[in-house]
Amino acid sequence: MAGTIRVAVAGGTGYGGVELLRLLLRHPHAAVVRATSEQYAGKRLDHVYASFRGRTDLLLEPLRAERLADGVDVAFTALPHGAAATTVVAVLDAGARVVDLSADFRLRDVETFRRWYGEHPAPDRLGDAVYGIPEFARERIRGARLVANPGCYPTGALFALVPFARAGLLGSGPIVVDAKSGASGAGRAAKTDLLFCEVEESIHPYAVGRHRHTPEIDQELSLAAGERRAVIFVPHLLPIRRGILTTAYVPLASDVDPEPLLRSAYDHERFVQLLGAETFPDVRDVRGTNDVHIGWTVLAHERTAVVVTAIDNLGRGAAAQAVQSMNVMFGVDESAGLDDIAAVP
Amino acid sequence: MAGTIRVAVAGGTGYGGVELLRLLLRHPHAAVVRATSEQYAGKRLDHVYASFRGRTDLLLEPLRAERLADGVDVAFTALPHGAAATTVVAVLDAGARVVDLSADFRLRDVETFRRWYGEHPAPDRLGDAVYGIPEFARERIRGARLVANPGCYPTGALFALVPFARAGLLGSGPIVVDAKSGASGAGRAAKTDLLFCEVEESIHPYAVGRHRHTPEIDQELSLAAGERRAVIFVPHLLPIRRGILTTAYVPLASDVDPEPLLRSAYDHERFVQLLGAETFPDVRDVRGTNDVHIGWTVLAHERTAVVVTAIDNLGRGAAAQAVQSMNVMFGVDESAGLDDIAAVP
Amino acid sequence: MAGTIRVAVAGGTGYGGVELLRLLLRHPHAAVVRATSEQYAGKRLDHVYASFRGRTDLLLEPLRAERLADGVDVAFTALPHGAAATTVVAVLDAGARVVDLSADFRLRDVETFRRWYGEHPAPDRLGDAVYGIPEFARERIRGARLVANPGCYPTGALFALVPFARAGLLGSGPIVVDAKSGASGAGRAAKTDLLFCEVEESIHPYAVGRHRHTPEIDQELSLAAGERRAVIFVPHLLPIRRGILTTAYVPLASDVDPEPLLRSAYDHERFVQLLGAETFPDVRDVRGTNDVHIGWTVLAHERTAVVVTAIDNLGRGAAAQAVQSMNVMFGVDESAGLDDIAAVP
Amino acid sequence: MAGTIRVAVAGGTGYGGVELLRLLLRHPHAAVVRATSEQYAGKRLDHVYASFRGRTDLLLEPLRAERLADGVDVAFTALPHGAAATTVVAVLDAGARVVDLSADFRLRDVETFRRWYGEHPAPDRLGDAVYGIPEFARERIRGARLVANPGCYPTGALFALVPFARAGLLGSGPIVVDAKSGASGAGRAAKTDLLFCEVEESIHPYAVGRHRHTPEIDQELSLAAGERRAVIFVPHLLPIRRGILTTAYVPLASDVDPEPLLRSAYDHERFVQLLGAETFPDVRDVRGTNDVHIGWTVLAHERTAVVVTAIDNLGRGAAAQAVQSMNVMFGVDESAGLDDIAAVP
Repeated sequence: MAGTIRVAVAGGTGYGGVELLRLLLRHPHAAVVRATSEQYAGKRLDHVYASFRGRTDLLLEPLRAERLADGVDVAFTALPHGAAATTVVAVLDAGARVVDLSADFRLRDVETFRRWYGEHPAPDRLGDAVYGIPEFARERIRGARLVANPGCYPTGALFALVPFARAGLLGSGPIVVDAKSGASGAGRAAKTDLLFCEVEESIHPYAVGRHRHTPEIDQELSLAAGERRAVIFVPHLLPIRRGILTTAYVPLASDVDPEPLLRSAYDHERFVQLLGAETFPDVRDVRGTNDVHIGWTVLAHERTAVVVTAIDNLGRGAAAQAVQSMNVMFGVDESAGLDDIAAVP
Repeated sequence: MAGTIRVAVAGGTGYGGVELLRLLLRHPHAAVVRATSEQYAGKRLDHVYASFRGRTDLLLEPLRAERLADGVDVAFTALPHGAAATTVVAVLDAGARVVDLSADFRLRDVETFRRWYGEHPAPDRLGDAVYGIPEFARERIRGARLVANPGCYPTGALFALVPFARAGLLGSGPIVVDAKSGASGAGRAAKTDLLFCEVEESIHPYAVGRHRHTPEIDQELSLAAGERRAVIFVPHLLPIRRGILTTAYVPLASDVDPEPLLRSAYDHERFVQLLGAETFPDVRDVRGTNDVHIGWTVLAHERTAVVVTAIDNLGRGAAAQAVQSMNVMFGVDESAGLDDIAAVP
Repeated sequence: MAGTIRVAVAGGTGYGGVELLRLLLRHPHAAVVRATSEQYAGKRLDHVYASFRGRTDLLLEPLRAERLADGVDVAFTALPHGAAATTVVAVLDAGARVVDLSADFRLRDVETFRRWYGEHPAPDRLGDAVYGIPEFARERIRGARLVANPGCYPTGALFALVPFARAGLLGSGPIVVDAKSGASGAGRAAKTDLLFCEVEESIHPYAVGRHRHTPEIDQELSLAAGERRAVIFVPHLLPIRRGILTTAYVPLASDVDPEPLLRSAYDHERFVQLLGAETFPDVRDVRGTNDVHIGWTVLAHERTAVVVTAIDNLGRGAAAQAVQSMNVMFGVDESAGLDDIAAVP
Repeated sequence: MAGTIRVAVAGGTGYGGVELLRLLLRHPHAAVVRATSEQYAGKRLDHVYASFRGRTDLLLEPLRAERLADGVDVAFTALPHGAAATTVVAVLDAGARVVDLSADFRLRDVETFRRWYGEHPAPDRLGDAVYGIPEFARERIRGARLVANPGCYPTGALFALVPFARAGLLGSGPIVVDAKSGASGAGRAAKTDLLFCEVEESIHPYAVGRHRHTPEIDQELSLAAGERRAVIFVPHLLPIRRGILTTAYVPLASDVDPEPLLRSAYDHERFVQLLGAETFPDVRDVRGTNDVHIGWTVLAHERTAVVVTAIDNLGRGAAAQAVQSMNVMFGVDESAGLDDIAAVP
């Protein structure tokens, strides 16, 4: 790619959108042409989020789907599920490419979508989308016009499970995915149960067995395994802002050491860090980044691998992975704009 | 019981010890005769913990095992593992009863103890101890001279698992116990990895497959099941002060609704609250109390029950359960001194 | 008083209301006859707040002002400012007594009220109310039919300032009151800026120089001083649930040691703990209680006392102080139902 | 400057040191030649702090003062007070420049140093140091061989006070500096009172009137004012990791609007953001950055300006300001390596 990638962000003041803008405004090969916000249209970004003071004078615009693509190479749509599809189609039809952070194009089966989300607004376009985890679908993303950016939980789960599935090493028992997420995953809508006083010093599971990310994990896991698999997925809400820790209990088909498998899958990946057997990740170490940290052990008595991944739900789980896909789509260095190191402590 | 129960607390300024003192100083039928602290001997309790200002002028004493029982009916030993046993034996030999909050008398098998903790200081006394979850061992506790107060994690796990085990409903697959604990469970020793800046905005698993509470869970689960069972136990450190949320994945032997089972086990127990199917607990609701909150669901596609319990690791997981055992031992109202309602928010 | 105090709570599911219910349901001399909630009318309290499971089957009712007093001796009104007054008047007219937790009857001057809150709904009743800090107005509270329960910030500030004001020791310079409050002080309404993700790892001042608690502090300080005084009041929002730490910078009229002054004011008060010169309080030590912890020092080079108080904004700053006033009004032990010790850690 | 700035970091695994390495490893004009750590010498940085995984294979070395300067242009010394001076002198004598993050060269007066810290190890070098706030001493830093990097609290305070002092607008009354700091300011040493369970849900003042940063504020304020001034300084410990909010109460010499004054001081400064009158900063917006956010108001009734600054204590309060000074010293773009935008939420 020669020159600058011109980007638009639709939904720039939700938590995913603002993280996109944080990354894109500092991206060496991108220029933010346009950012929209229903709630704050007409305001400057740095008056809504003071963290941008002195860095940009970007003005937030109202969303007009048919204009979003004007003068841009790629649009990031960080809109609510259901509402995103119309805008995505309009942008595609106008000739720009799209990385969609909603769930609208993640599921390949329209029936499955209907069951979990309702009627799909553009079912004929489902087939156009590439499910965008670059480490698993780099070539397809390169040529994609529409990348469906994965959900945060599926991202954390699939990095633990896919190597086993691809290698045919998943045993026959239940696959338990016990995930713990920071509160930013629930978005910025004003809800009582997301108030500081309700979340602090607290933890609880929610949507057990019926979280919308379940079919997404099942779909991609089944594709990787070459057979239909379904996980037991239990998300928990944590009193932290960012981060998902996923503890996956993986039944093994045989007495195998997972290390060569994981090394073969990830050693050449710059964003994936294998901490080693018996060394487990902490979400703080990936905060604000696109990194995936992985640790594991095998419990021989149950022939089960415990594989633990840590990601930032707004980074690798949303905005940073979307930017990584953009980098792949436009042929720039895959880590461009994604070289932050987590600020610890 | 007529009259007041005279108590001593050995190790009164660790997190478990100070919670014991908070409960015992307000207990309607107990009088704190003596509290020891190696670190703060000679100081007033309310000068170490200002929360006691205006409530007590109790002076902390150095521990002298042979004197601990003087004039007391029961001693609570909240001392480090290994160090507790000597004191426990001294108190027993002096004629008083003991509730031991250490791990020294929890395991029945001396070989198992050796493997996880080292040489046992008083192996011949192992058989004297009753493992002290009153809801599961009320009659034996009543007559016990030595109650081994359970570990915090085992308490949270066993409330989820024991009813299934006793009913013979545990299926044959792995039993996953994914537990999340507040930092007070790690005690008050000054360690870098327990600093505020290391724990805040963070979560990580630890001691995966080799936490010392594992044999304790296995032992009690096997006793309840009438056969040898072993769990997959993974604890996680949370950025909260108090509370353990335990998410147990229980393979079922048949297609059974757990509700009658759980109701039969717990409906008559005042400290155990069944929130209902699809209603899951939050640790904040049991903070500072002896309560156990339980929610569950069944995932039919894997014939697995997800059973979630919430306890306060310092309350039901340590001091409050110890006081409950004392109440049982001395025949007073089992909820005496344990009627706190969690302060929410 | 012979017999039980029959109480009603209007607004029982806001943060102040639920703390009232937590205290009153365990109060040895009170019986909760009725609790209202607009949002949750028809539901059981323990289904709204699971912390009450197993402790009460209280059903929440819709508020009907004219019925609130039926069969009750005293009503606690924990309603929004402006809305409370009508209910208060209805209860008084029905012959019951009232402890009002809103701001409606705190200010004595109707003009001041208008400037800060708008038109007063019942200006002729302003004179009937007693400003309810028992340590400063015990005798007047005893005979009061209407107690205006103080704001949380004024309570924290006045415990630091009143002894100096009454003794004529306030110097002539600015009195700075720098206060830091937990988020529960802002209530339970679903507002974006109170979301966990907005408050966590964060601190900011707000309403600087124009917080509605300012005239309340000024009024009571002026009454204590016998002359018109006005503070510089700056509140800050902290990422904690409960607690206000107030750092007051008090100009001294002369080179005086504050200790005798403070001891004379507070040594006989069971809820007020003087930690001593150079020993400063921490909000955690008063969490869930009615206690006030006070520390101080004198900075001779500026003839200024730094006086620091810690209270629980929902406890001493709202519900617990209201219960203390009820105890005074009905002649029972002033500490009845208020003997909790903060659970530390 | 042509070419790369070769740097060494002494004390690279304390909280200040690791933040230095985070910034320097990504700095476009710097190369980290050497980093020392007493505790972790011989280990890789990314094995101590997993956040560096995949970014560096830097090996930590033991500190040898006489070798620290080998092949480096500038050394950052992030060592304990008292211990730093020897190393600083060794580096200077070896011909390299130094930015010292300890307190050893901040105070100009050896008597004052002795009173607050003890005997100075190199009193003859005190005069060589430049107190390093670039916005106030840019020219002197440019030529300096030794920059004394300011304390975190003084940095937050001086940005609020210096413009008033320089303009002769400080009134005669007490200047109150009420500061609130995240726990990382206390360092990474394992101390009980810095444990998560001691800090969480808590706030308290400490070292009131006797914090070692007091003489540093007084010194620089007096220099700016051209007359001896001394502040009332009260620091508080917050349950956040990073950030200092400083609320300064500035007596004004006349009825003046501070806005032109502040604009004249800071409008041309890229790292200083004036949020405007009545708009106050939040520490989260500067987290991980070198930014200073400032808001203010004037309380006319007391002729007092309330000026509030927010900084990251490890960023602008330590490592980022040190890097900014390095940029100035070596003539590169002052914001090189310092363009992070705070990750919000």
